Amino acid sequence: MLIKELIEKKRDGLELTFDEIHFIVDGVTRQTIPDYQISAWLMASLCSGMTEAETAALTEHMLNSGRRLKRCTDRLRVDKHSTGGLGDKTSLILAPLLACLELDVPMLSGRGLGITGGTLDKMEAYPGYRCDLSEAEIESQLRKIGCVITGTTANVAPADKRLYAIRDVTGTVPSVGLITGSIMSKKLAESLDALVLDVKWGSGAFMKSIIEARELESSLVRTGRRMGVITTSLLTDMNQPLGRMVGNACEANEAVDIMKGSGPADAVEVTLALGAELLLSTNRESCPEKARQAIASLLQNGQALHRYQEMIEAQSGRFSEVLPIERSTVVESKNSGWVVSLDGARLGNIVIAMGGGRRSQQDAVNPGVGLEMLVRIGDRVENGQPLLHLFFDGAQPEIDALRDLAREAVGIGPSQKPGPALIVESA
Amino acid sequence: MLIKELIEKKRDGLELTFDEIHFIVDGVTRQTIPDYQISAWLMASLCSGMTEAETAALTEHMLNSGRRLKRCTDRLRVDKHSTGGLGDKTSLILAPLLACLELDVPMLSGRGLGITGGTLDKMEAYPGYRCDLSEAEIESQLRKIGCVITGTTANVAPADKRLYAIRDVTGTVPSVGLITGSIMSKKLAESLDALVLDVKWGSGAFMKSIIEARELESSLVRTGRRMGVITTSLLTDMNQPLGRMVGNACEANEAVDIMKGSGPADAVEVTLALGAELLLSTNRESCPEKARQAIASLLQNGQALHRYQEMIEAQSGRFSEVLPIERSTVVESKNSGWVVSLDGARLGNIVIAMGGGRRSQQDAVNPGVGLEMLVRIGDRVENGQPLLHLFFDGAQPEIDALRDLAREAVGIGPSQKPGPALIVESA
Repeated sequence: MLIKELIEKKRDGLELTFDEIHFIVDGVTRQTIPDYQISAWLMASLCSGMTEAETAALTEHMLNSGRRLKRCTDRLRVDKHSTGGLGDKTSLILAPLLACLELDVPMLSGRGLGITGGTLDKMEAYPGYRCDLSEAEIESQLRKIGCVITGTTANVAPADKRLYAIRDVTGTVPSVGLITGSIMSKKLAESLDALVLDVKWGSGAFMKSIIEARELESSLVRTGRRMGVITTSLLTDMNQPLGRMVGNACEANEAVDIMKGSGPADAVEVTLALGAELLLSTNRESCPEKARQAIASLLQNGQALHRYQEMIEAQSGRFSEVLPIERSTVVESKNSGWVVSLDGARLGNIVIAMGGGRRSQQDAVNPGVGLEMLVRIGDRVENGQPLLHLFFDGAQPEIDALRDLAREAVGIGPSQKPGPALIVESA
Repeated sequence: MLIKELIEKKRDGLELTFDEIHFIVDGVTRQTIPDYQISAWLMASLCSGMTEAETAALTEHMLNSGRRLKRCTDRLRVDKHSTGGLGDKTSLILAPLLACLELDVPMLSGRGLGITGGTLDKMEAYPGYRCDLSEAEIESQLRKIGCVITGTTANVAPADKRLYAIRDVTGTVPSVGLITGSIMSKKLAESLDALVLDVKWGSGAFMKSIIEARELESSLVRTGRRMGVITTSLLTDMNQPLGRMVGNACEANEAVDIMKGSGPADAVEVTLALGAELLLSTNRESCPEKARQAIASLLQNGQALHRYQEMIEAQSGRFSEVLPIERSTVVESKNSGWVVSLDGARLGNIVIAMGGGRRSQQDAVNPGVGLEMLVRIGDRVENGQPLLHLFFDGAQPEIDALRDLAREAVGIGPSQKPGPALIVESA
């Protein structure tokens, strides 16, 4: 097989076979195909699209380019994955909560890149928290506590690590097939029984339109099921941040609020819905309402929070119910009307500009930086009313410019517009 | 400007500006953009297509990435370029012939890659012929003889050299915009007054369909005219080899036959038509028929051949009217009927397999290898009748297999089919 001919075949819109995709992934892993041919194949795949069979083959070969986590207990093993959104702290809650229900949750996560924060960055807001557990440490912690939130080990899908690095700098990230392969090869390496996907659409998500999000959702779910994992999904709204808090320590604190039985209604609702999906998938519950009640009671009775603290301490983190955040400045409205839109991309970029996220993989992150939304789409606001708080390092010289940007991120119109449905549909 | 954003813009089907294309070509030339980003941009350009303005900008910036030949005489300067076809020896004839008409022809050519032979390889069939003239040597020879056939110097369009090397291995050759930029940046570096293009279509050409060939023709002609060169073109047939002979020494010998006033009618006709275009472009003649007569008389009276010999000797080659070729084997028909097709790609690959062409840039070429077509589309053939001769090195073990392949390259049907028009149209 010649890589040049496979590039040409894909360029011409033809379907690559299982073996041809194996040849490519193997060449990626063993470094026998140079970067410039990989990037040409990636762009041809993006432009021509990938079939369901190609996507499944890519996922399977990327999975097999590395190792899978061993099964180390008799418990069923589940995970939840979100395609990423502003203020999404659901993973922090669900990992310990599902462990309380005797389900193992080996959550291998990533860092934030772009406007959406990464789960690992949020966990590292707890001083000392380790995200570099070895396979043996992951197994040991699953046996003892039933949940772990750590980085993917070097042995998981090495093909994806190289492919992602190339995609990131060659404009080949937004391909449904390539995204599916990247996400699912890593999730399948967890050796799961059931997976629930939270596919987000809107201004604060990777997929700006509901049509693109549905296409990705369908690809992810079909691929998971082809690979023998019970896979379900929710399509959820990301036209405004989930909950009130955005930023690493801010979100960790809000997650703790939710695990103490309070917290914002939307974030609680998505948590209940995603958790319930997994209880139904694993036959722990047969009725959706009962499944939601089972989740809710673990938030009310403090068990999820207790397990959360155990997990953090097992990973060398210093738990605290309220992590310190930077001092706040208020952003006030300069006119009256109704909140009709929130520009998630702009809000995310403000957090990055204040030092709370990364522009490149090497950037350091200040966990105490973030923002708090005081209004939601559909709310009435008056001139001078606070719209949001920014939490920033006092040394920030450009804070006035950022405050103006933040104000512009809140679209105010003359008439009320209902916010989009929080949970659009499930598959 | 960020190359990643330009890749994304092109990927999304948007038009790059003159300055954005300058940024890319400059990064190609100065090696500030890595290969993997260049190949992603090339594939995005191929998949999304390039506008006329983008193609012109690419051509201009690639031209300006290097130097142009100086004007060194008072004579008008012309050239002819073919998009490549099997058996096309027209350049060998037209360079000295046009010089006889007081036109300078600074023909910077390439080597063969793929099924079509390169003009430089044909010239190198004359022992000692130098294809590496310096700019000073080119100028000096133009002053004395008025024509030169040599390789592009290192100073001509260096951006194209790097781009072509990447295109060749990433499936990004067949893009009309990229082909146009590559051809025209090198031709414009010759500082021409007029250029005629021979755009070939068919089984032995790069463009298999007349529609693709027309698209390329239009792009080449429009780009040449935008850049201030009088540019005309012929769209010619390449569904069968031009003339009878294919292979480097074989073609050089047939070119000499034509310059002695004989030779196959089709090759003579294309030579007359292309030469006449340039006499009309440069106002040497105003009537097409007179222009053809002017060309024909230089073939009849031996002046073109004389100048050809002078050129070869000026470039250190040992001229001979009949170069030695390898011993021949005949390929006979195994059935009766009418020749309805000739598979040019297969014929070209047979010549390569016999050692008469290259698979990769480093391959050595045996100039005495080739083939002679004994039939043309529309001819009647009987069982056992010779179809073609193969000229091959006696050591070739697989000659029987190649003879079978050659036989299969001649399509024989039950009823007569006229061959395609030799010259389809001119622009």
